[in-house]
Amino acid sequence: MAEDLWYWKYKLTARQPVNAKSQRREFVGALVRIDEGFGCLHPWPELGDPSLEKCLEDLAGPRRWSLVRRTVRSAKEDADARFIGDPLLEEIDVPKSHATLPWQDDRILESAVSKGFDRIKMKVGRDRAAEQRYLIEAAAKFPNLRWRLDANETFEPAEAESFLLGLPEEFRWKIDFVEDPCPYAESTWSALKSRCGVPLAVDREAAPVSSAAQVMVVKPASDEPWLLAEAAVSMGQQVIVTSSMEHPLGQCAAAWEAAKLNVQFPGLVGVCGLQTHHLFTPCPFSERLGRWSPEFQSPGGTGLGFDDLLERLPWKKLS
Amino acid sequence: MAEDLWYWKYKLTARQPVNAKSQRREFVGALVRIDEGFGCLHPWPELGDPSLEKCLEDLAGPRRWSLVRRTVRSAKEDADARFIGDPLLEEIDVPKSHATLPWQDDRILESAVSKGFDRIKMKVGRDRAAEQRYLIEAAAKFPNLRWRLDANETFEPAEAESFLLGLPEEFRWKIDFVEDPCPYAESTWSALKSRCGVPLAVDREAAPVSSAAQVMVVKPASDEPWLLAEAAVSMGQQVIVTSSMEHPLGQCAAAWEAAKLNVQFPGLVGVCGLQTHHLFTPCPFSERLGRWSPEFQSPGGTGLGFDDLLERLPWKKLS
Repeated sequence: MAEDLWYWKYKLTARQPVNAKSQRREFVGALVRIDEGFGCLHPWPELGDPSLEKCLEDLAGPRRWSLVRRTVRSAKEDADARFIGDPLLEEIDVPKSHATLPWQDDRILESAVSKGFDRIKMKVGRDRAAEQRYLIEAAAKFPNLRWRLDANETFEPAEAESFLLGLPEEFRWKIDFVEDPCPYAESTWSALKSRCGVPLAVDREAAPVSSAAQVMVVKPASDEPWLLAEAAVSMGQQVIVTSSMEHPLGQCAAAWEAAKLNVQFPGLVGVCGLQTHHLFTPCPFSERLGRWSPEFQSPGGTGLGFDDLLERLPWKKLS
Repeated sequence: MAEDLWYWKYKLTARQPVNAKSQRREFVGALVRIDEGFGCLHPWPELGDPSLEKCLEDLAGPRRWSLVRRTVRSAKEDADARFIGDPLLEEIDVPKSHATLPWQDDRILESAVSKGFDRIKMKVGRDRAAEQRYLIEAAAKFPNLRWRLDANETFEPAEAESFLLGLPEEFRWKIDFVEDPCPYAESTWSALKSRCGVPLAVDREAAPVSSAAQVMVVKPASDEPWLLAEAAVSMGQQVIVTSSMEHPLGQCAAAWEAAKLNVQFPGLVGVCGLQTHHLFTPCPFSERLGRWSPEFQSPGGTGLGFDDLLERLPWKKLS
C-alpha cells in the first residue's frame, strides 16, 4: 500500500549563533506527514548531514540516510499513538534537561539557576580565554552547578588538553563531561581524559564503538536509541538523550525516546538535553512546550502532540 | 514573660545501624513545645553531642549548647507561622535529596533508582574492600548515579587516600564528595583532595574555617544556616543541607532551612539530604512525609506541620 507523503518546511530563527561551526542564524527543516503520523526532519549540513532537499528526495525514494529513516520511524510511532488516542508524553517520566547557554551571559545564567537548572551546557572553542574566565567566575558565583562543555570537535587534541588544564582542578571536578573535544580516536581520548581528569562524551557517528568515552550522547533524530543504549550498557557509559535543535515536534520525539530508554534501562540515562526551544524565537509550537525549565512539558494532544496546529499547516504533497 | 515549656521523648528504631561509629539501633530524642511552637531535639552522643537529659536541662536553663539554641530558634519560627496559619513547607521549593543507603543492598539501590534518585549517599569505613567492590559494581550497573561517601572521620588520612585510590579513576569522577574522610586539617585535606582528585565535604564544628573543603554540609539541627552559607559563599563552596537522622518534625525544620537558603543564595545549595525517615520503622509522623523520593513532601498543617498529631502527644512539663 502506497504511503500518503506530505511535508511542510519550517524556519527556526536563533536568538544567537547556536554552534561553534556555524554563524548561521536561520535554520530550515521540514515536518513530514506519513499517512496519519508526523515527524521532524532537520538536517545540519555544517555537521555533515545531507541538505534538506536531498533528505526529502531520499524520503520519497530509497530512504538511505539514517536521519530520514529515523523520521519515518518516529512518524509511524506517532501514527499508531494517534490512532488509539494515546498522548505519548503524558503519564511517563521524561528525564530532566540541562540548560543550554547560547552564549556567555550572566543574565541568562542567573535565569537558568532561578528556574532550577543544575546542569549547564555551554559551547566552547570560539574564544578560549574568555570562555575559561567565564566558567571560573560562574562556578564561583553558583557553586551548585555542574558543567557540560561541548566543543563540536573544534579543538586539536593538544588544544583540548591545554584548554582543560587551563581550568583549575576544582572547576574540572564540576565538569559533567566534555562533548566531542576533538575528533574521536581511542588513543587521543584516553590520554586526554586521564591527563585532564574529566569524563568525555561522544556524539554522532563514533558512538557504538567509543569505549574511551564515559558518556554517550544519543540523538534520536539520527540515532537508533535502543541499539546505542545497549552498546552504552556494555561499555559502562552513561547515556544523555538530546534533541537536535530542531522543531518542537522533533523535541517531543526526542523526549519520548528519552522517556522510553529511562524505563527500559533504569539508572542509565542522566540529565538530558531536551529543552532547546528557548534558543529560537517563539512560535505557536514552541509556546506549547512552556517556559524554560529542567522539566519537559507535554504539548498536549495525542501521539507526539500539537494535533490542532499540525492539522492547520499548509502541507505539500511529496512525490 | 516566662515560657511555657513541654517535652515528649520519642524513640526511633533504625532498620539497620545508621552510623559507622555506632551499632546502636534505637535512638531517643525529644520534641519540645515552647509556648505555641514545636521543635526537635535529637543529640547524637557518639558524634560528640551532650546526652538528651543534659540537653533538656540546658533547655530549661542556660541554653549553652548550640543544639538546644537551634531547637529554640526553630520552635519560635514554628510558633510565628502557626499563629498566622502559614504552612511553611508549602509553595516554596525544597531542594531535592540524595538517597541514603543504610547498607550495601542491591534491592534498596534498585528501588532508589526507580524512585528517581540520582545521588546516593553511603557510609564507608566499616569493611573497606567490600565497600569498594560494591561501589564499582553499582556504578557499572547504574552509570547515571553520583556518589556521596560519608566516612564520619573513621579513616586516618593515609587510609582515606588508599581507600579512594583503590577506586578506579572513572569511579572517582562520579564522587560528588567524600564527607569527613578524616579529622579536618587544612594540610591533610588539601593533600588528600589533590592526590585523589575528589571533592571533600566538611561537616560539624570545623565548617566555618574549612577552606580546604569544596562542599559544606549544613545541619540546621546544630548549625546556624545563614552564617555558614555566608562563609561557604566566601570560600566558593557548595552547600548541602541535611537533616540529622532525627524525628520527622526535625526533618521538616531542616527542609525549611534548606528552602530558605535556596531562595536567599541562588545557585549555592546542591542536592540535599532531607529524606531520612525511611531509615527508621514507620510512625504516624513519618507516614505524613510520604514515600521515599528525591522530592520532599510537606506533611500538611501549619508551621512545620503535623498539627493534629502534635496536639495529641502526651506532653510533659519541663521545669
